[in-house]
Amino acid sequence: MKFRLLASATESRARIGELSTGHGLVQTPAFLPVGTRGTVKGVFPRDLLDLGASMILCNTYHLLLRPGIDLLRSLGGLHRFLGWPGAILTDSGGYQVFSLSSLRSIDDRGVAFRSHLDGKLLFLSPELAVEFQSIAGSDLAMSLDECPPWPASSSELDQAVRRTVLWAARGKETWRRLRESCSGLPTPEAGLFAIVQGGGSAKLRGLCAEELGAIGFDGFAIGGVSVGEPVEEGLRAVAETVVHLDPGRPRYVMGVGEPWQIVEMVNLGVDLFDCVLPTRLARHGVAYTERGRLSLRNASFRLDTEPLSAECGCYTCRHFHRAYLRHLLKSEEILGVMLLTLHNLYFYLCLMRGIRRALETGRWDPFLAEQRRRRKEYKEGS
Amino acid sequence: MKFRLLASATESRARIGELSTGHGLVQTPAFLPVGTRGTVKGVFPRDLLDLGASMILCNTYHLLLRPGIDLLRSLGGLHRFLGWPGAILTDSGGYQVFSLSSLRSIDDRGVAFRSHLDGKLLFLSPELAVEFQSIAGSDLAMSLDECPPWPASSSELDQAVRRTVLWAARGKETWRRLRESCSGLPTPEAGLFAIVQGGGSAKLRGLCAEELGAIGFDGFAIGGVSVGEPVEEGLRAVAETVVHLDPGRPRYVMGVGEPWQIVEMVNLGVDLFDCVLPTRLARHGVAYTERGRLSLRNASFRLDTEPLSAECGCYTCRHFHRAYLRHLLKSEEILGVMLLTLHNLYFYLCLMRGIRRALETGRWDPFLAEQRRRRKEYKEGS
Repeated sequence: MKFRLLASATESRARIGELSTGHGLVQTPAFLPVGTRGTVKGVFPRDLLDLGASMILCNTYHLLLRPGIDLLRSLGGLHRFLGWPGAILTDSGGYQVFSLSSLRSIDDRGVAFRSHLDGKLLFLSPELAVEFQSIAGSDLAMSLDECPPWPASSSELDQAVRRTVLWAARGKETWRRLRESCSGLPTPEAGLFAIVQGGGSAKLRGLCAEELGAIGFDGFAIGGVSVGEPVEEGLRAVAETVVHLDPGRPRYVMGVGEPWQIVEMVNLGVDLFDCVLPTRLARHGVAYTERGRLSLRNASFRLDTEPLSAECGCYTCRHFHRAYLRHLLKSEEILGVMLLTLHNLYFYLCLMRGIRRALETGRWDPFLAEQRRRRKEYKEGS
Repeated sequence: MKFRLLASATESRARIGELSTGHGLVQTPAFLPVGTRGTVKGVFPRDLLDLGASMILCNTYHLLLRPGIDLLRSLGGLHRFLGWPGAILTDSGGYQVFSLSSLRSIDDRGVAFRSHLDGKLLFLSPELAVEFQSIAGSDLAMSLDECPPWPASSSELDQAVRRTVLWAARGKETWRRLRESCSGLPTPEAGLFAIVQGGGSAKLRGLCAEELGAIGFDGFAIGGVSVGEPVEEGLRAVAETVVHLDPGRPRYVMGVGEPWQIVEMVNLGVDLFDCVLPTRLARHGVAYTERGRLSLRNASFRLDTEPLSAECGCYTCRHFHRAYLRHLLKSEEILGVMLLTLHNLYFYLCLMRGIRRALETGRWDPFLAEQRRRRKEYKEGS
């Protein structure tokens, strides 16, 4: 994996760049649609490509449970399994082990947990996490980390940072060892990121980032954001972490977020984002627009023959009106979810193009100001 | 609506033709995907067009309940509501009133019934059925009929035929009256069909067909088929009805059916078909192939990296293998249903193209023989 910086804003750390992977170029800042269980819910891979998605995220935890590592190996890896020609970033599995599974016991060796599907006892170590992602053929793999809850005591944070660094080092060692083996995986183009933890402590964040930087990784994720903390605190944690990261490496904030959060974090120097919001909210009948969210099940849309957004050029907005979308959602018709999913992903990917264009043309400051003005307006309007 | 016969088989009544509607040409024999509640379940309208669907069916009963006639009128009719540029055939609502609603009381005026959604008391008359379809902007409307159950007593059949003819006459009168009004609906291009009933009685079928023919309609549907009778009996009823129908008008068998039944009924001279099978079976994880059905949830597909069908050129078969489709279905992922729906509709529409090509090139007899041979083989093989 190679990362090339193309331009930066003058008044902030915002920047554009280009990630070259074994499965194509990814223009950054980039938003990665989330394919939890081997599919970005409700959308054809060909439509993802048409929307301009160049990289998706797959969850190691979910794929570990089903189809499982043996099946994935037999089937020739994730790209072939999913029929997805673009790049794939995999998470380490750690976050889901902590949030979804039961009966976790954790020590320096790794985490023992029970599958939330069938209660089967499983074990994840930093070595296994990297090995699994490698076999899956991930273009961008993550080291196993320990994500402390929010809020956490300072001893919990200390412990999480210590273990995250320890595990990252062991993950990197596994990565190196696999590369030297004859398996062919990970490929020379694949990249390994480490994840910075430290909760709300600027000191611990800095320490964690410096130690991971010293070990050396292809890029860095900022973890423990969007785990329940106030949003302003999440932004502060990102800002305090970024200053300790190598500017020549890509930075990734996991699980974030709302469009405005993405804009703010780009402004702090973040390059990669993923979030379930556009696809999840679509399943709940909610559409993103330039003027805020629309909850399509509302009776107010019964006779509304406007598209979701008059400014939007997506398939949904070009062909269908709100009254029909409401009818589909009220009738529990799958097409309603399909159309909203397309629209919401288009909205996110279009926002990212807008961000990149603003940076490219040296217009980041007015772009940011406009985004902030709109956000204020629609918050006050709704 | 105009119907033009293009060619016929020499040894049977099979034929090809062309229906010109206010929303494009429909090459017959044609299969109509079913859009029960204003959507062909699980498929984008653009993909339906790409698959070669030129006409879909919408169910009057379902649309009468939701969104309802007032809303549909305000929203400018079905085509605009659905964002569907092709032709739309609407059924009369009668069949669903009998099969889905409760508390039906029927007399010559019409049917009183309770909505299966909210228990609301509703009334459907032959006049209202035609008026609703007209307001909906249907390209091909159906007269209200009484579909007797199977089996039915001969007095039940007598009654159903008498009422079906009576109602068809009143439906046609309404159609004529509406056309002379200033509403602009039905348009001059729209067509009205009558439905032939008569159960398993060749005599009653003949009587019904003759009487409806004397009233005069744009085409004729053959009802009361696929309502629980043995399939051979359904085929016999179709054969015995067709001989009484004007060869210059299109013939439509409602709710049929399996691919082999369609082939056999084309052989009997039928031009139009609709059926929920390809979309419904997709939701149950079943795919049609040239070698019979595949039930994708079966464990035997766990490691199967073959496409659903090696001969199939659909998007699903070009990009995804059985193991992945099985994974999606087992994970209850919407994409599994979307991909199988595309494939099954492709299979049906491809079969119709094969049928038309065989007729066009004077190769109907060998085509039919090959279809029958295959059917025998896969029945014996499975």
